Amino acid sequence: MLKIDHIGIAVHDLDAAVARYQKLLNCTCHKIEEVTSEQVKTAFFAVGESKIELLAATSSESAIAKFLSKKPEGMHHIAFEVTDIYKEIERLKAEGFTPLSDAPKKGADNKLICFFHPKDTNGVLIEICQSIV
Amino acid sequence: MLKIDHIGIAVHDLDAAVARYQKLLNCTCHKIEEVTSEQVKTAFFAVGESKIELLAATSSESAIAKFLSKKPEGMHHIAFEVTDIYKEIERLKAEGFTPLSDAPKKGADNKLICFFHPKDTNGVLIEICQSIV
Repeated sequence: MLKIDHIGIAVHDLDAAVARYQKLLNCTCHKIEEVTSEQVKTAFFAVGESKIELLAATSSESAIAKFLSKKPEGMHHIAFEVTDIYKEIERLKAEGFTPLSDAPKKGADNKLICFFHPKDTNGVLIEICQSIV
Repeated sequence: MLKIDHIGIAVHDLDAAVARYQKLLNCTCHKIEEVTSEQVKTAFFAVGESKIELLAATSSESAIAKFLSKKPEGMHHIAFEVTDIYKEIERLKAEGFTPLSDAPKKGADNKLICFFHPKDTNGVLIEICQSIV
């Protein structure tokens, strides 16, 4: 893993959360992006080499809506940047981790992404991602 | 905030979690440290400029034991490195955030630390930290 690319935080009201995190982090949200395939709207803040990603659902079918129907707002996933997402998926599968999709998908922030099941990682939903160049 | 210093993950069995995260992150745990004041044992992994910190309770009175008595294992806090923790506490208080201690405390990894209540940050327990030089 090259670095923590971002930490995803599930919120109900994106605008209110953006205002709050601008105060917390003392910096401006640099990108708001809707990911229609995931039915989420995202807001990014840069902190060092990583980002904080606030996520709000745009549909009741979204994974974020389902998460927030069962749990309070809070940390949703950790994303690690990798050099070769296809190789890393194979390495992690061989180590016994469980990908949530057969192949990488297009995610926010111009990345290929793949999630891994939290049952193998002490309850932490893990994403690996690679920038599309 | 200078960078994400670490992400804290609460676990029941530190040794088992270390073995699992060594496989996940494909790197070796570089430090195991017991913080007696917090009644926790911690294990650190370096990922880019940040760290993953696994936390297990050493006493039923520990904040981690209390967390795990109510919730499953998983992400516990995000820690941001700051230049001047005293100034940052005052800035955050003025912005309406709620510190959990009156003054910074000595934490793991040779740092002064201060936590902020998750009620102000969409359910995310925030730590700010500064290295002791």
